[in-house]
Amino acid sequence: MINITLPDGSVRQYEAGVSSMDVARSISEGLARNVLAAKVNGEVRDASRPINEDSSVALLTWNDDDGKMTFWHSSAHLMAEALEALYPGMKFAIGPALKDGGFYYDIDAGDRTLSSTDFKKIEDKMKELARQKNEYKREEISKADAIKYFEEKGDEYKLELLEGLEDGQITFYTQGNFTDLCRGPHIPDTGKIKAVKLMKLAGAYWRGDENNAQLTRIYGIAFPKAKELTEYLERLEEAKKRDHRKLGQELELFMFSEKVGQGLPIWLPKGTRLRERLQNFLRREQEKQGYQMVITPHIGNKELYVTSGHYAKYGEDSFQPIHTPKEGEEFLLKPMNCPHHCEIFGHRPRSYRELPLRLGEFGTVYRYEQSGELHGLSRVRGFTQDDAHIFCMPDQLKQEFLSVLDLTRMVLTKMGFSEFTAQISLRDPDNPDKYIGSDENWDAAEAAIIEAAAEAGLTTVTELGEAAFYGPKLDFMIKDAIGRQWQLGTIQVDYNLPERFELEYIGSDNQAHRPVMIHRAPFGSMERFISILIENTAGKFPLWLAPDQVAILTISDRFNDYAHEVLNKLAPHDISGFVDERNEKIGRKIRDAELQKVPVMLIIGESEAEEGKVSVRRQGEGDQGSMSLTEFTEWFEAAAES
Amino acid sequence: MINITLPDGSVRQYEAGVSSMDVARSISEGLARNVLAAKVNGEVRDASRPINEDSSVALLTWNDDDGKMTFWHSSAHLMAEALEALYPGMKFAIGPALKDGGFYYDIDAGDRTLSSTDFKKIEDKMKELARQKNEYKREEISKADAIKYFEEKGDEYKLELLEGLEDGQITFYTQGNFTDLCRGPHIPDTGKIKAVKLMKLAGAYWRGDENNAQLTRIYGIAFPKAKELTEYLERLEEAKKRDHRKLGQELELFMFSEKVGQGLPIWLPKGTRLRERLQNFLRREQEKQGYQMVITPHIGNKELYVTSGHYAKYGEDSFQPIHTPKEGEEFLLKPMNCPHHCEIFGHRPRSYRELPLRLGEFGTVYRYEQSGELHGLSRVRGFTQDDAHIFCMPDQLKQEFLSVLDLTRMVLTKMGFSEFTAQISLRDPDNPDKYIGSDENWDAAEAAIIEAAAEAGLTTVTELGEAAFYGPKLDFMIKDAIGRQWQLGTIQVDYNLPERFELEYIGSDNQAHRPVMIHRAPFGSMERFISILIENTAGKFPLWLAPDQVAILTISDRFNDYAHEVLNKLAPHDISGFVDERNEKIGRKIRDAELQKVPVMLIIGESEAEEGKVSVRRQGEGDQGSMSLTEFTEWFEAAAES
Repeated sequence: MINITLPDGSVRQYEAGVSSMDVARSISEGLARNVLAAKVNGEVRDASRPINEDSSVALLTWNDDDGKMTFWHSSAHLMAEALEALYPGMKFAIGPALKDGGFYYDIDAGDRTLSSTDFKKIEDKMKELARQKNEYKREEISKADAIKYFEEKGDEYKLELLEGLEDGQITFYTQGNFTDLCRGPHIPDTGKIKAVKLMKLAGAYWRGDENNAQLTRIYGIAFPKAKELTEYLERLEEAKKRDHRKLGQELELFMFSEKVGQGLPIWLPKGTRLRERLQNFLRREQEKQGYQMVITPHIGNKELYVTSGHYAKYGEDSFQPIHTPKEGEEFLLKPMNCPHHCEIFGHRPRSYRELPLRLGEFGTVYRYEQSGELHGLSRVRGFTQDDAHIFCMPDQLKQEFLSVLDLTRMVLTKMGFSEFTAQISLRDPDNPDKYIGSDENWDAAEAAIIEAAAEAGLTTVTELGEAAFYGPKLDFMIKDAIGRQWQLGTIQVDYNLPERFELEYIGSDNQAHRPVMIHRAPFGSMERFISILIENTAGKFPLWLAPDQVAILTISDRFNDYAHEVLNKLAPHDISGFVDERNEKIGRKIRDAELQKVPVMLIIGESEAEEGKVSVRRQGEGDQGSMSLTEFTEWFEAAAES
Repeated sequence: MINITLPDGSVRQYEAGVSSMDVARSISEGLARNVLAAKVNGEVRDASRPINEDSSVALLTWNDDDGKMTFWHSSAHLMAEALEALYPGMKFAIGPALKDGGFYYDIDAGDRTLSSTDFKKIEDKMKELARQKNEYKREEISKADAIKYFEEKGDEYKLELLEGLEDGQITFYTQGNFTDLCRGPHIPDTGKIKAVKLMKLAGAYWRGDENNAQLTRIYGIAFPKAKELTEYLERLEEAKKRDHRKLGQELELFMFSEKVGQGLPIWLPKGTRLRERLQNFLRREQEKQGYQMVITPHIGNKELYVTSGHYAKYGEDSFQPIHTPKEGEEFLLKPMNCPHHCEIFGHRPRSYRELPLRLGEFGTVYRYEQSGELHGLSRVRGFTQDDAHIFCMPDQLKQEFLSVLDLTRMVLTKMGFSEFTAQISLRDPDNPDKYIGSDENWDAAEAAIIEAAAEAGLTTVTELGEAAFYGPKLDFMIKDAIGRQWQLGTIQVDYNLPERFELEYIGSDNQAHRPVMIHRAPFGSMERFISILIENTAGKFPLWLAPDQVAILTISDRFNDYAHEVLNKLAPHDISGFVDERNEKIGRKIRDAELQKVPVMLIIGESEAEEGKVSVRRQGEGDQGSMSLTEFTEWFEAAAES
């Protein structure tokens, strides 16, 4: 008998040779039906494989990321089977699952040209083969036999892959009439795949090298339930509509210019208003918590980065140093604000009474990302962090974490994000030498983070070994309106920079002590956060944040002067917008304002101008009645709060 | 008889050979007594030199810059005469007047070491010689005789200077016993010099070359009235107290760090608050005038600057290009914001209805200044311009100039600067080919600037030939509280960049037209403007602008909680400050707040805490009585407005 330990800690005894699927069945048939694979001693495996010694077993279903990945990997094999059945002689390169969902297979279609018009036929064949509930069968095979198989089949890609594999480590997987060279694991049988959809075709070079043959990459998605496919496609459609790159252009929020440079966003007037409203809001909230804003240059002398240790890591994949007329002088575009803030802390003696010293900066930093990685505002080469560095005593860590968590929750709620979780990254307990700072400090800091997250009622995942060498950290994640998860910013403890910059404060004991430093940029960057905000709201920003809050629409150009008077009177109440004084019908003006997602329209005709009023219309809600300007500003303030 | 035209346009007739001094005497003896030199046909000359043909003559007195320069040049000769009398054998190199006031002489004192303890003796000798009213006598001399004179005297510096001079062009000036090689001109006699003061000693290499002999430079100042010297020294003392570098450190507004880099200011929390208040104020005022703010990156691809024409001028004396992993890719730290703004204008079609399009940005730019040129915040390597670019139709130029003049006057008045003048720089009428853009456009633009300045009632100086090749401009100058003149920013018309970026708008005629561009940064940069503001106010900023507006001083720590409650309640009224909760006597707290130049102190003791009030004390004005918080915010708002 062997002991099988389940994730809840319970231990069950089984005969040696038992499979994970047997274990599932011994618990419940219903569970077994949902099992796609299993994690045995940390390794994802086929649920059918025998277990011969004491092991920990986690059964994987569609609810587990590893379950999904296995499912999609098996779906790639199913697609290959269908392709081979429909187009004999096709050659197969690689066919992995994708983290972001779905799978692809790179194929060499020979003289055939596949197009998306073939998708229906392939999908139908896949569904037909799925209904056969063919088992994914694993087979260990000698290298010689494997080579022989693919030589006969005439698939030079698999043969090239085999060259890199060691004899004795090679496995084949077969379902129905299709056999593939594959490390696995796979789901029990094709019957689990109830819904499939091929998404698109793309060109891809064999092994990513443009000197090699160009293959056809077919992307697909699959689900265990038809309903899930429908929802997925709807979500995709919705995401496309919300794409911040598309909305950013339509709403004239930002632009890119080839001449200025890829990945360097230029904020247009409306985007600038949005960003500055957001920054002002964050600044005020931070100031309430005792943060003090600073402004530092966008470059720093090489010496600064030698001290911080970053210079040694400045590789050929970065923006290169800026030389000057002075021989040997080098400046670097700043990739982070922390070294500058350390210089501020250290420029004069500090007392424990000044701690925690919280230095905040909306600091624009520059990092060279590969051009293929750039994506709208979410991956850029220049971005503005909502950065702050907190210099504190070790026993102030927990309170500072709690405050940052509070601030983050408050801001996210105000932005309309209700779900927010975090990952806590701690030391690798097996490699204590990897880390700088005393054990005592680490223990205290890790406990502070864990306790603060618990007290804040935050849902967290804890990852051992994911801490940086200089301190533990917490990363924020949010879920948006259509269920997508986004990684935000971080709170990071740092014992390293205070050491390197020899930072000190005089304690109540009159002795010099080294402060601990916290890096925090809970929203990551203005660029990234605004890209998420655009996609979450589909461009319909909350009233208080909208770049144009009111559109003043005149029924005739006789009322344009009064309209401008209204706009000017609203400005001191921090209500901004524009007058649409075009010579257009009012219906057209309303439609255009709606398209521009302006939250409030003020319509002005004869009676409004005479009575000194405005007719208020809320986007998506319609008429709110006629109001005096005083009534309107009160209405607006209430609406902006809610 | 010859005709002499005076500056007021009147013409008088004199015998040929008349001197400017004769002309002065013919007008009034009083005037003649004040004449120091004369500008004859545009050239500054001795008042005693004969005039032989029809000429324009401007008599120069102490009220003219050229009069002052001549006076100080003659003072340098007087100092040399005194030195030669006191220390025979001393050798003289060069002795010019200084634009910023005063003069120096570089001397080779041989084995003697001069120190400031010798100043009194030298000054006394100068005064003694001045009382002799020795005439400055001009003599034309052959090169051979001049060389003979200085060979006999043994002054190798003058001999070296003579090498560079052409025979027939050489003049000596003699007053009393001292003769110097000198182009002149000089004042009539030493008797005009009533007050002298030697200021400091410095080392200086002969001809500025460190391989040459090191000379002793003696700086001095002189005036035609004793009272003026007293005032000058007082002003100097006052300027020292107001030095923004000293105050910036004392008030913790900004700092520099060797590691970050020379000339790269780091704004500390208080300086950041000051700067952001100022920026917010400027932003609001600009938005009222229809400016739209944008944010652009701090770098730009080489292509951008090739298009703008700046790349060709990017020399070895600049920050060098930033290379990237991509071969041939180069970015430049942006030295100005205009190319980025041109890209914004050009990124989509524009209609005449959108003009004037006013794009504003507090844009931080980087320019490599020589380290010797750096000075606090006034000369730096990274600075933030209050920049904007106005794209308009040619017939909108005048109105835009008027608006910028209005805005500038309003802001300067609000800052407490009452005197403000401008220099208008126009084409050189003799070199029309130097300029791009049609004559018609230039005529219109120059007229627009001149008319706008006149309508705004602005005192201006017009300089022909000082326009840039791409357009005419207007530069602002202000006078501060102690009478010093400061150069601020500029409004500049530009026909060049719209051409280079091929910018177009569709006119009401449905045809494409090229817009005109106006660059304007009336305050120059936040750094420079704040340096002037610090020196003008001596750090006592206007209430609305002060980084800490209130210091809340508790009489005992029992009231600290109430003090923080007060601070929090003031925050929504945009009143910021701090609680001084140190365990110090209230007298000490008041003194420290005064030293930190905090404009308002709120004192809190038993009765204030009980009654929910504050005792208000205005810096420099004393007790304002006890007020409720509502009363105080009203008092504050009124005080901030005034």
